[in-house]
Amino acid sequence: MKNFNVILFNDFETLDVFGPVEVIGKLPSIYKINYYSIDGSIITNSQNCRIITDNIDSIDMNGIILIPGGMGTRKLVDDDDFIDMIKLLSAQSEYVLTVCTGSALLARTGLLNNRNATSNTMAFDWVCQQNDKVNWIRNKRWIIDDKYYTSAGVSAGIDMTLQFIADIHSYETAKKITEYIEYDWK
Amino acid sequence: MKNFNVILFNDFETLDVFGPVEVIGKLPSIYKINYYSIDGSIITNSQNCRIITDNIDSIDMNGIILIPGGMGTRKLVDDDDFIDMIKLLSAQSEYVLTVCTGSALLARTGLLNNRNATSNTMAFDWVCQQNDKVNWIRNKRWIIDDKYYTSAGVSAGIDMTLQFIADIHSYETAKKITEYIEYDWK
Repeated sequence: MKNFNVILFNDFETLDVFGPVEVIGKLPSIYKINYYSIDGSIITNSQNCRIITDNIDSIDMNGIILIPGGMGTRKLVDDDDFIDMIKLLSAQSEYVLTVCTGSALLARTGLLNNRNATSNTMAFDWVCQQNDKVNWIRNKRWIIDDKYYTSAGVSAGIDMTLQFIADIHSYETAKKITEYIEYDWK
Repeated sequence: MKNFNVILFNDFETLDVFGPVEVIGKLPSIYKINYYSIDGSIITNSQNCRIITDNIDSIDMNGIILIPGGMGTRKLVDDDDFIDMIKLLSAQSEYVLTVCTGSALLARTGLLNNRNATSNTMAFDWVCQQNDKVNWIRNKRWIIDDKYYTSAGVSAGIDMTLQFIADIHSYETAKKITEYIEYDWK
């Protein structure tokens, strides 16, 4: 079993998390989905969702991580402890997936320097300001650079995760998931 | 503020809930999103998500309710206490939205009798068996009959909720949400 580790923080964007989780969750014999926060607390967001998380200390450092976006990222880009944690984790994880402004958090670690990446169209300028050494590419649903998968806003995280499944497993596996979730993959 | 009340149960389908929640959550000055279960417990599903819920006793009976689908519905269609609760709530709520096999639960209450409704393509035959007095319509993203909005599988719940917003507010409001979440509304 591979660990698919979702990094949660307050004011994360709901669908940034649960779009990819829905896709990954369709392969329950391959992936175990886990939810972590920096202190293992109950995480809430503007959609009033309260999620129980595990403390990041117990994470499998060699798993796959998902970094969502959301309003919570606006403060976290300046939180050195949080960025250090993301850096340590991202460097060691097998794959790193970000949705929306989650790529701003990853960019702050320096790990995206000289790499191609994308983000939410509506927050694009702010994201670019977080690190100008990243080759930010506008108007893409997702961008892959080595082990880093970055996607545009919210629903684009679903498309990116389907691409991830197609790359790691097969196009047919991804296609089957789209049928189950009745999703029109872009 | 209107209460948008999500009914949760174990083994609900993740995106059935968080697709509509993402859309409704974009109008935070109009809708307050709440999560209920029959006993106010922590609800889990196969995507390993643990959500804190409130006891259904405290629900606003005149709000809007969302009934998701998922494997959990297979048992719940035969749970008289659960179906009675859904019936009481649905009869009184201003609007009732279902995603995927959530329409099977609503059908068991009898409230969809002689009404048009739809459900997940892949579970359609099972859903029809739950109540043959419903005019089940196959291969639609969503169906509206009076205050009852039923949708097809998983991602179709997003489309249905956008239609709900267009009906209650305006097409422009719904369109704006699709831009924010970068979603291609069908």
